[in-house]
Amino acid sequence: MDLKLGRMTLKEWVAVESDSIQPVPRLRQELFRMMALAADKLRHLGASVDSVDGGSQQLPNGQTLPIPPIILAELGNDPKKPTVCFYGHLDVQPARREDGWLTDPYTLTEVDGKLYGRGATDNKGPVLAWINAVSAFRAMEEDLPVNIKFIIEGMEEAGSVALEELVRREKDRFFSSVDYVVISDNLWISRRKPALTYGTRGNSYFTVEVKCRDQDFHSGTFGGILNEPMADLIALLGSLVDSSGHILIPGIYDHLAPLTEEEKKMYEAIDLDLEEYRNSSQVKKFLFDTKEEILMHLWRYPSLSIHGIEGAFEEPGAKTVIPGRVIGKFSIRLVPHMNMSVVETQVKQHLEYIFSKRNSSNQMVVSMALGLHPWIANVKDNQYLAAKRAIKTVFGTEPDMIRDGSTIPIANLFQDVIQKSVMMLPLGAVDDGEHAQNEKINRWNYIEGSKLFAAFFLEMAKLH
Amino acid sequence: MDLKLGRMTLKEWVAVESDSIQPVPRLRQELFRMMALAADKLRHLGASVDSVDGGSQQLPNGQTLPIPPIILAELGNDPKKPTVCFYGHLDVQPARREDGWLTDPYTLTEVDGKLYGRGATDNKGPVLAWINAVSAFRAMEEDLPVNIKFIIEGMEEAGSVALEELVRREKDRFFSSVDYVVISDNLWISRRKPALTYGTRGNSYFTVEVKCRDQDFHSGTFGGILNEPMADLIALLGSLVDSSGHILIPGIYDHLAPLTEEEKKMYEAIDLDLEEYRNSSQVKKFLFDTKEEILMHLWRYPSLSIHGIEGAFEEPGAKTVIPGRVIGKFSIRLVPHMNMSVVETQVKQHLEYIFSKRNSSNQMVVSMALGLHPWIANVKDNQYLAAKRAIKTVFGTEPDMIRDGSTIPIANLFQDVIQKSVMMLPLGAVDDGEHAQNEKINRWNYIEGSKLFAAFFLEMAKLH
Repeated sequence: MDLKLGRMTLKEWVAVESDSIQPVPRLRQELFRMMALAADKLRHLGASVDSVDGGSQQLPNGQTLPIPPIILAELGNDPKKPTVCFYGHLDVQPARREDGWLTDPYTLTEVDGKLYGRGATDNKGPVLAWINAVSAFRAMEEDLPVNIKFIIEGMEEAGSVALEELVRREKDRFFSSVDYVVISDNLWISRRKPALTYGTRGNSYFTVEVKCRDQDFHSGTFGGILNEPMADLIALLGSLVDSSGHILIPGIYDHLAPLTEEEKKMYEAIDLDLEEYRNSSQVKKFLFDTKEEILMHLWRYPSLSIHGIEGAFEEPGAKTVIPGRVIGKFSIRLVPHMNMSVVETQVKQHLEYIFSKRNSSNQMVVSMALGLHPWIANVKDNQYLAAKRAIKTVFGTEPDMIRDGSTIPIANLFQDVIQKSVMMLPLGAVDDGEHAQNEKINRWNYIEGSKLFAAFFLEMAKLH
Repeated sequence: MDLKLGRMTLKEWVAVESDSIQPVPRLRQELFRMMALAADKLRHLGASVDSVDGGSQQLPNGQTLPIPPIILAELGNDPKKPTVCFYGHLDVQPARREDGWLTDPYTLTEVDGKLYGRGATDNKGPVLAWINAVSAFRAMEEDLPVNIKFIIEGMEEAGSVALEELVRREKDRFFSSVDYVVISDNLWISRRKPALTYGTRGNSYFTVEVKCRDQDFHSGTFGGILNEPMADLIALLGSLVDSSGHILIPGIYDHLAPLTEEEKKMYEAIDLDLEEYRNSSQVKKFLFDTKEEILMHLWRYPSLSIHGIEGAFEEPGAKTVIPGRVIGKFSIRLVPHMNMSVVETQVKQHLEYIFSKRNSSNQMVVSMALGLHPWIANVKDNQYLAAKRAIKTVFGTEPDMIRDGSTIPIANLFQDVIQKSVMMLPLGAVDDGEHAQNEKINRWNYIEGSKLFAAFFLEMAKLH
């Protein structure tokens, strides 16, 4: 495996300021250049490459910017082999030296075995690791054990504009032969121990508006004779969750997947230094004291967070206002097998009940502003078994079997549209700092990760 | 009484854009011109006039602007007569034609007996009405029945910068001979019936901060394992007041002045069309159904309003944030004889108790950010009796005896520093629109108001 070459390419790719967040024509050009470099690279690998026009993006200010093409590529179509589709992205978060970077963010720099640079771990490094794995077979003139497809986009950090439409359009064409989808766009939860991600929580985001009138009131002139919307809203928000984090909405826990002995063991096996986690989180005390409880409450139990209030006084200082119309915002992280529309009904009924008890003359409107299903994979699927064996071969250990407490829309998208097994197989360590200053990928992770992908191809072929 | 001349002067004064809010050198010059015009006017009246340098104002941007002088003037010093000091201000709120004015805000324009113009009722008209009253005696070459003092400022709308310092400094000099202070800077609560204002509520403004850490959290990554500061804060704010407006802080009602039969009758006598009040307030339903209950809850009972939360998500949209540190803001309108430091202790003890019950690992800090005492006058004081008689003479009716639910810092200031009887004797009607577009004073109010002040001088002399 020509890893020196692989590192040179990573350096070349990191040097492209493929920032999709800042809507600047110069950066958009860099994104196009990035996608062209990747298409070239894949063609050199022998893949047939289709750069699909992404159309254009309408900005809030009315300006229009072109969306970089999404690459669909394929290598091999032997009907006897399984077809694995790899998703990755080559756009990055903004980075400037003066934000606190110790090295230039767009010059890949090795210090103590760490390769620093924007996009090194999110997600240019993992994309190249996959390409390295394919190259290895090519270089040894060996047949690829699996058929490979690539879907590589350049707008992930900006919300994967245009991706969903493409995936739906290509469902019965490009994706029709796909058996497995692999995403490598998250991190381990440890510095040294590999992980496999098999689920994410969903989210249902609610707004509750309480209105007396559109204008605000002065608290001297009206304080004492009004059903103040803030008092109503505070009572509504205060009815949602108790101080132990338990959600108080009746029925909300009814459809939770039962905790099996097998699942319990997965939490026990996970490598998590609670003390370090607490320190790095800068949290004095969590609601729970054990690793297992903490992980379960992040991954397999729902949680309710109150985000804020729109329309009230939020600035520094002391303003004596009675807000006339306020909107509270909260969301519930959903887990298997909660049903989003059941949750919506439960929340609405609960808030209507609490509001009716107050006998307020204000108007209340509850809306579910956003709903994302939870995602859970079957860890007994072939690709999870293959990945576990490959990890054992390359790293000599069992992986941490992890979930993500957040929603990863791309996993949901592939799961929902293609309806094939989706696996998240991360390469980066927990301290890689994706989105932060001094993002890095360890040289060790990058090299062993490339080997891992190659070993995964072999194991997949064996299991198929 | 030369009222034609009085209207000419009002036109001239309204024409000066004496806006103290916008910190613009041109407008500051207009303010200086306004104060010079007033000083001239008072000198023509025969008063000895002292324009006291106001020093300068430091703006938040570091810029410095001069503060217009405060006028101290006096007319007569007969030790056998009472000395009445009149407070007024000649600065105005900003106004632009395009804000929705039907006439030019700086050109006094009469339409259907209404004199439209910025400052017409707040407070140039009433200041001139007082001057008109003095002029009337001068014009008839009659002796003034009382000694008159004036304190006229040009920064009231901007918070009376420099006033308090001057009043304290002049306590034993200019103010030493003052027996009564009259302020005419508020409105009747009816269109046709005069009023006397004898009290205002105070205010104690609280902040309660709940902190887990300085940075925010992502609700996917941390939701479920934290004592979320918003949940704590919502519970704290939710413990303050019930849905009927009753304050739940133990002891808060302990020191309220008892409601006497006499006071009760004052509310009953007040002219208030509830239906019109409700409509003009755009409020579907108040907490109380009778005029008396509504007025008492605005004037003689405390109220608690929750103003908002600093540090949470307050913008439109759906952000999945767990705020790391939030500051709730609420205030209690104080009434006689609540003691501010007792209230402070009650609030702190209550919140500490509620917080301790939650067993949260967050930190809570409660602060009283601002405290203003309530003001109440003795309505049996000579000047209240004199004003009632003068109203009866000029308007043929008893006045509404009213209070203000807001704090009027100037009344407090004179009460606290000079410790003489303070009376608020408004001239303007409830619909004058001070601070709003199309501010006006009715010609009738202006003329009868000038007569009222003259009659008041005579009644004062009789009672003394």
